[in-house]
Amino acid sequence: MRLIRFGNPGAERPGILDEHNTRRDVSDRFKDWDRNFFSNGGMEKLREFLAINPRPTAVNQKERWAAPIARPGKVICIGLNYSDHARESNMAIPEEPIVFQKGSNTVVDPYDSIIIPRGSEKTDWEVELGVVIGKEARYLQTKEEAKDYILGYCVVNDVSERAFQLERDGQWTKGKSCDNFSPTGPWLLTADEVPDVHSLRLQLCVNGQVMQDGNTKNLIFDVYHIIHYLSQFMTLEAGDLVLTGTPAGVGLGMKPPHYLKVGDVVELRVDGLGEQKQVCEQA
Amino acid sequence: MRLIRFGNPGAERPGILDEHNTRRDVSDRFKDWDRNFFSNGGMEKLREFLAINPRPTAVNQKERWAAPIARPGKVICIGLNYSDHARESNMAIPEEPIVFQKGSNTVVDPYDSIIIPRGSEKTDWEVELGVVIGKEARYLQTKEEAKDYILGYCVVNDVSERAFQLERDGQWTKGKSCDNFSPTGPWLLTADEVPDVHSLRLQLCVNGQVMQDGNTKNLIFDVYHIIHYLSQFMTLEAGDLVLTGTPAGVGLGMKPPHYLKVGDVVELRVDGLGEQKQVCEQA
Repeated sequence: MRLIRFGNPGAERPGILDEHNTRRDVSDRFKDWDRNFFSNGGMEKLREFLAINPRPTAVNQKERWAAPIARPGKVICIGLNYSDHARESNMAIPEEPIVFQKGSNTVVDPYDSIIIPRGSEKTDWEVELGVVIGKEARYLQTKEEAKDYILGYCVVNDVSERAFQLERDGQWTKGKSCDNFSPTGPWLLTADEVPDVHSLRLQLCVNGQVMQDGNTKNLIFDVYHIIHYLSQFMTLEAGDLVLTGTPAGVGLGMKPPHYLKVGDVVELRVDGLGEQKQVCEQA
Repeated sequence: MRLIRFGNPGAERPGILDEHNTRRDVSDRFKDWDRNFFSNGGMEKLREFLAINPRPTAVNQKERWAAPIARPGKVICIGLNYSDHARESNMAIPEEPIVFQKGSNTVVDPYDSIIIPRGSEKTDWEVELGVVIGKEARYLQTKEEAKDYILGYCVVNDVSERAFQLERDGQWTKGKSCDNFSPTGPWLLTADEVPDVHSLRLQLCVNGQVMQDGNTKNLIFDVYHIIHYLSQFMTLEAGDLVLTGTPAGVGLGMKPPHYLKVGDVVELRVDGLGEQKQVCEQA
């Protein structure tokens, strides 16, 4: 199943994307795709509802696409999780996952603008596979068990300001939590419809030029490893979003480095998870 | 004014603490002390309500004390913000604030247990002044302006697992976001009732022995500086919680280092903001 949300910021409503790519509105039956929904058997109720009502009202095509999930409780990110990206960043391949957080308020729709922060000269892109948690995960016993806790997957652009992240004394948060720094969607594809999450191509173009072209088969720590690992340090909750890292080809890694400027168009896609498009504007 | 919340986890209700230290229930009039409340003129409505109803129903004394605010959108922390703590941690005094995040789900009540994570040998304490944001702050022009964006203050214990934080490859998040790692409260004191936020004594005892005894006058970056600074990198939202750093005296800084074990009792206080007490248990 493909979950979507639509509507203006602050008034998003839940829906699904059917097999003909028509958005269908289920907001008269369900409130939102959020922690409360996911952790109270919401997906089962949604499946039951759709079995009886296979064609809910179509969403007006003029309606804005929103992020496919409500604001997550946490956005947890894995750093340097593709060996080619670690190399281009001149950083060592980590022995265990590097973990950092982004503000949940950075999650915006897949076609929203990338806002270049004031004072930024190094705003960069990162196409990533996003994992949405389906139920509370704490101290998972095995990597295999992690599968049961994953609701599905989506595209995320982990937009990053490299000077804020790396040159401003300390932790990475400053360069990761600026407004609009996590375009998410256009849809969430449930895990049951992803044949092999470790064989998905990820691509990102800037102004039509391919910058990143990777594959999740090259993840250093795979998706199940990540979820199992994180659950040893923190409780992952339903609706939390986990970003799994980006492959080579970010602006920081180019010689010379190349960063986003006002008017640049960023397009990204992951196999089966749809495409995003953002235009850069100044804060 | 002093805001409080009470009730069992997941069913907390809002109240106030009156001048006789009696908790009063305003949940029939207000839903919760959260972003929605603070950003929609809630505090003005609360003041108007109390002007007409100065003695709402007292809360049953058996009711659990909860954190004084609903789960924040973000918990943003400033690292190494007292020079004596930077020295004891063998880290340089930062040139600008070090910023990191904790999971919002770590915020628990002031008398909840400290849960020592599985595999932890270095669970440590940090008494801190917590700042609660009153309205959306983005690109503040001046440090002075920051005052208008602060709703009030509370005590927070920024519990930290030092091995997870410092010895496990990379960013600090892993040692900061474990369950129950941010006991908060018992109350939020509104900023108008704090004569000088840069003259508050902070103390923390373990098993009755004073471990930390600092004062906010020794902050490297003061409260207004922090809020102004953060707003250049991210949007602070109403109800967000900012931890301003801890003074010297954490377990990491002792020779030899001293960490929490099951059964240890941690008590902490900040002038005017009340006292917390936690017993350590094993996850």
